[in-house]
Amino acid sequence: MATRCLATIAVEAKPVEPLPPMTTTAIVHDLAATVMARCDTLGAISEEEGRLTRRSYTQAMRRANDQVAAWMRAAGMDVREDPAGTLLGHYAASKPGAPTLLLGSHLDSVRDAGRYDGPLGVLVGLAAVEQLGCVGRRLPFAVEVAAFADEEGLRFGRSYLGSMAFTGSFPPALLELRDPDGVRLADAIAAFGGDPARLGAAARRPEDLLAYLEVHIEQGPQLEARNLPLGVVSAIAGATRATLRFGGTAGHAGTVPMELRHDALCAAAQTVLIAEELARATPGLVATVGQIAALPGAGNVIPGVATISLDVRHQHDPARIAAVDELRARAQAAASARGVTLAWEELQSTSAVPMAPGLRARLARAIAAGGHTPLELPSGAGHDAAVLARFTDAAMLFVRCRGGISHHPAEAVDVADVAAAIAAVGRWIDDLAGEPYP
Amino acid sequence: MATRCLATIAVEAKPVEPLPPMTTTAIVHDLAATVMARCDTLGAISEEEGRLTRRSYTQAMRRANDQVAAWMRAAGMDVREDPAGTLLGHYAASKPGAPTLLLGSHLDSVRDAGRYDGPLGVLVGLAAVEQLGCVGRRLPFAVEVAAFADEEGLRFGRSYLGSMAFTGSFPPALLELRDPDGVRLADAIAAFGGDPARLGAAARRPEDLLAYLEVHIEQGPQLEARNLPLGVVSAIAGATRATLRFGGTAGHAGTVPMELRHDALCAAAQTVLIAEELARATPGLVATVGQIAALPGAGNVIPGVATISLDVRHQHDPARIAAVDELRARAQAAASARGVTLAWEELQSTSAVPMAPGLRARLARAIAAGGHTPLELPSGAGHDAAVLARFTDAAMLFVRCRGGISHHPAEAVDVADVAAAIAAVGRWIDDLAGEPYP
Repeated sequence: MATRCLATIAVEAKPVEPLPPMTTTAIVHDLAATVMARCDTLGAISEEEGRLTRRSYTQAMRRANDQVAAWMRAAGMDVREDPAGTLLGHYAASKPGAPTLLLGSHLDSVRDAGRYDGPLGVLVGLAAVEQLGCVGRRLPFAVEVAAFADEEGLRFGRSYLGSMAFTGSFPPALLELRDPDGVRLADAIAAFGGDPARLGAAARRPEDLLAYLEVHIEQGPQLEARNLPLGVVSAIAGATRATLRFGGTAGHAGTVPMELRHDALCAAAQTVLIAEELARATPGLVATVGQIAALPGAGNVIPGVATISLDVRHQHDPARIAAVDELRARAQAAASARGVTLAWEELQSTSAVPMAPGLRARLARAIAAGGHTPLELPSGAGHDAAVLARFTDAAMLFVRCRGGISHHPAEAVDVADVAAAIAAVGRWIDDLAGEPYP
Repeated sequence: MATRCLATIAVEAKPVEPLPPMTTTAIVHDLAATVMARCDTLGAISEEEGRLTRRSYTQAMRRANDQVAAWMRAAGMDVREDPAGTLLGHYAASKPGAPTLLLGSHLDSVRDAGRYDGPLGVLVGLAAVEQLGCVGRRLPFAVEVAAFADEEGLRFGRSYLGSMAFTGSFPPALLELRDPDGVRLADAIAAFGGDPARLGAAARRPEDLLAYLEVHIEQGPQLEARNLPLGVVSAIAGATRATLRFGGTAGHAGTVPMELRHDALCAAAQTVLIAEELARATPGLVATVGQIAALPGAGNVIPGVATISLDVRHQHDPARIAAVDELRARAQAAASARGVTLAWEELQSTSAVPMAPGLRARLARAIAAGGHTPLELPSGAGHDAAVLARFTDAAMLFVRCRGGISHHPAEAVDVADVAAAIAAVGRWIDDLAGEPYP
């Protein structure tokens, strides 16, 4: 991978001979190649040998933040970490007192992760700054690149720790959370170099922000299915999560005739199909049963208990709530028809978070200007943007990922799609800066 | 519990004063109380503190065999163990060279077992001999009571070890089986006092046997549902056992729209319902999915793999085979409709074993003579009778059990039902002996 831009991104650049002036397209392609190489570099920074696992506030996370900080500094940014451990690189505006455009995502990962979920958004943000720095350009707003501390929630079981602190919505009680080794979150933050006693100081003022943009792999197959490199997120879907426990009567598989059975698994299986059918019939709805268990769990014993997880999402809350209500009623009927009980435990219900319409429209224009059809689609997964959207105007740009695979080592993006993303972000920034692009 | 019959069953009897002559009914009720008390005694002989687990060829099994042997000797029987460890008590015929009527079941148990599955059949057989001995009666055939070694198969994973040796159908290769502690079956038999090198000598000649009768708890709810104490087994059902593995595509529960999913669990769930529907629509068929698993098994991940067990039974083989064929075709269609693969692994297919029609008719008459409706029903569970039926005429008498529960400490039978069973077996023996009962 060669980088032909400026010294500001020379960290990986081999010494090269002076080059002729580059076109914007050539610069973007070089930046995309740099982003890909940097994702590889970060992908090798792991807690575990042979696979990528990078939990928040670990030594691996320290190395990742330090590596990105070095790239940020090389790009001419002022770099700091806030008291929650979120890494922030600041590229100054053309004049003092200007608001800040925030670009970012996260550097922590799930267990046995891919290398793009999170880092791609941070590094495309950094590339956008490098594209400005390349030509010494300053905008009427500062550009800040954020790598939020702990988006995935793998270590302490709670997501968005960094973005909650950034937006002043961090519940202090969370500092008492403990990881599986018994380490308190407060102690982990302190050991990382943060300051748990001063988390409040991490909170920014919304009036100082212009907007937030998060670039992220789609984590789904819709862009690939339509042969599109980029998508504009309409909203981050709301989600209902529940555990359904069906209680029937265990019995001998050979000796209890069908008409005398109270088979808990049959009721659960029918509910799996009801969820599938309902989601298929409701545009935009997804419903998933990812976990199932039958007890006692022997091949020759009728299940007396069956438990399933349920995950229902939609970008419009009323559609999701109506679907959950119908699902619950039909699951109850499936249970009752078999003399089986149903205990429905709702674990979580989060509202949908719409992205800012103006920012979305500008993103769609920027994508179209690159020659691509701008598809709007909801994000079924949660992101830091869901927290930021309650604080400032927020938008998300999705990048096609191979096979829709994420949270897996097979996660993959094309360098050409990354170039398209960098170009679109560049145009979108131009647009915000009031500098029309062709 | 008092026993008022003869010295032959005086093991538990407290010293009592001389009694007036008893009616048959009174004797039967005393014998039933004795059987109940003996089931309690055996139920306390366990490998584990606080629950009943009695695997074959263990010290607990040794104590159980020795206890029953003592009762057999007290009943005037010649007692021995064959080379496979099956306990045999012989009550001689009125004349030498007569054939032998075999009554029996087993004394080994499942883990955390009830106290009646197995012992009840041995002890009702013993009670039948005691009923003869009470009055010094000899029949034109010998009566032998068998406690077959290892019917449940808990220790070595193979059932019917004792009855296979008894019928000369024991595969010698099984001697190399090892229990979870690595003990070879051959060594376990030898340590128990058997003779693994002479298992062939355990084999009886079919021409020496008159018939085999096994009394057993129903292990199902049909007799209780009809308020009947006893049932005649029509056949031991044939069974097909299979593992079905559905292979789809894992994906993010929030980001993959329904129309792009290949959800392995949805295909599996539909198959669970197909099995239920097919069994409900086919008289006498039972179909059970007792085990189910979805991988990767997270609430927010679409299952890429789902596995289910399948257990299909019917007393008529063609009905079972046709049902399995239809189920397989419909499961394949459920998978294909979702772009999911199905791998069907048949683990076992055993034919139904009909009980001898003549013996069944005599059992039905004997039950009716006791004032009860003789219900014929298949046995969905396997029994030593399935092995014996390939060797001699065999029959089974089912005794109502509470709630249809078996293989569980809550296993329960009523003493009145045990009395009805003893009376029915007594009449059935009279019938075989050519001595009509009223």
